[in-house]
Amino acid sequence: MDEDRTTFWLEISDKISENVERTISDARCDPDLSIITKMGADGTPTHKIDEIAEDCVIKTLTESGKSLVLISEEIGEIKIGDDDAEVLMILDPLDGTSNAMRNMPCYGISIALADLTSKTLDEVTLDDIEIAYVKNFPTGDAYSAVKGKGALKNNEKITPISCVTKVSDATLCSYVYRAKSERLSNLCSSVRRMRIMGSIAIEMCYVADGAYDAYIDINEIVRILDIAASQLIIKENGGIITDYKGNPLSSKLKLTEKTSIMATCTSKLHENMMNYLH
Amino acid sequence: MDEDRTTFWLEISDKISENVERTISDARCDPDLSIITKMGADGTPTHKIDEIAEDCVIKTLTESGKSLVLISEEIGEIKIGDDDAEVLMILDPLDGTSNAMRNMPCYGISIALADLTSKTLDEVTLDDIEIAYVKNFPTGDAYSAVKGKGALKNNEKITPISCVTKVSDATLCSYVYRAKSERLSNLCSSVRRMRIMGSIAIEMCYVADGAYDAYIDINEIVRILDIAASQLIIKENGGIITDYKGNPLSSKLKLTEKTSIMATCTSKLHENMMNYLH
Repeated sequence: MDEDRTTFWLEISDKISENVERTISDARCDPDLSIITKMGADGTPTHKIDEIAEDCVIKTLTESGKSLVLISEEIGEIKIGDDDAEVLMILDPLDGTSNAMRNMPCYGISIALADLTSKTLDEVTLDDIEIAYVKNFPTGDAYSAVKGKGALKNNEKITPISCVTKVSDATLCSYVYRAKSERLSNLCSSVRRMRIMGSIAIEMCYVADGAYDAYIDINEIVRILDIAASQLIIKENGGIITDYKGNPLSSKLKLTEKTSIMATCTSKLHENMMNYLH
Repeated sequence: MDEDRTTFWLEISDKISENVERTISDARCDPDLSIITKMGADGTPTHKIDEIAEDCVIKTLTESGKSLVLISEEIGEIKIGDDDAEVLMILDPLDGTSNAMRNMPCYGISIALADLTSKTLDEVTLDDIEIAYVKNFPTGDAYSAVKGKGALKNNEKITPISCVTKVSDATLCSYVYRAKSERLSNLCSSVRRMRIMGSIAIEMCYVADGAYDAYIDINEIVRILDIAASQLIIKENGGIITDYKGNPLSSKLKLTEKTSIMATCTSKLHENMMNYLH
């Protein structure tokens, strides 16, 4: 994508994020905010707060006058605009819904964009994501990345605060309580500390900036929706991200695609964790 | 404690919290903030940021002109003032140190007070805590309780948002990755979701206000320092808190005392979790 288009889509991501944050904040008093309204297109329950957030994004995109394909949690895959789609937007309008409903300080939006002027919808994979935007609403921290141009936190270059290389020093995020793997359990017992805050999109950004040292999922339960943006933010900040076997992430950009993840702030820690698991 | 004394100690807790928050914030640019300066009196490493926070509390208390015994993480047990101690203060000046150093939105102060005008230092237990104060600095949420008078969040009565009774619906906090118990592992696999944010004092307040449904530790590794305040906040808000065998918490108020915990927002969930474990 050229610079003008990149700037346009970064600006629209910022605008979408602002609109969703304000809409959710305005809806705070709605007693029905936490009710489940339907099953989402991805098979998980949709709360009213999720629908409100997604409707807000669709409105902002429609008003932009651009043509695109949108893949989002509740609505699934839709076309917006009359012309040929110029981009694919992978959206989680509200990652960390339960935190949002319980006022926990970790929920927000994830937006990833792939160019559709050179590849078709069936061809694009995670490796084709060119623009990424994630914001944690309660803290106000916004992370962004442009492929080949590096990653930013609150519009400044991210300086990773982690230089951890040993498993025993690491702060690890893993939704391990669903894991039935003895090796993963051993890994979790060997790290310095575990964290589970409830928003994968934001927690992957914590790996990018070194607040966490690593994120791991070996059960292949991570939805592409949740990590399409943050995987680019990690890569553009010099972090390492693969599947749990050590292969580059290459999932198709489809609503129901899932992957395993092994993401670390330093390459040495990635190597040490791989040795631990395999 | 009569109303005047209660008001005095609540106000001083507020002032201590303000001073610590400002002192930590002012020290943010100090590149040595995260270095380990010594081993604390409780046997865990003391970072410079912990020392700064504790020194600030001791200064505020000394200036108050009152006589008290202070038990705190780094300094251990000390007497402040020339007269007989009128209260025992159990302090964690900075719970969630690693979060504070990594800018994660969950760290703060925990202050608990027991009356020493009617019981001696050797007699008081957790059940004698009369005043509790916990604040999460990055979110600004302050929780407080006075024995027999209920609990407050940001000076308003807490309305618990959880009415969860079933294990399968529960949001559970547990530092389970150190646990070697199959029963606890099964419990953690059976709940709706797990959370580990890294500050027990604050996370116990999340049980009080229903952001979490339960907190459990079966390894007896929870330090009295960390939960002296929040256990009263849970009780005063109608929550249930026992050790993992279902007995009331009765630990002596000593620096090195530890306990197990089974805390829930509703009594039915407590019963169901006990059945699960035993």
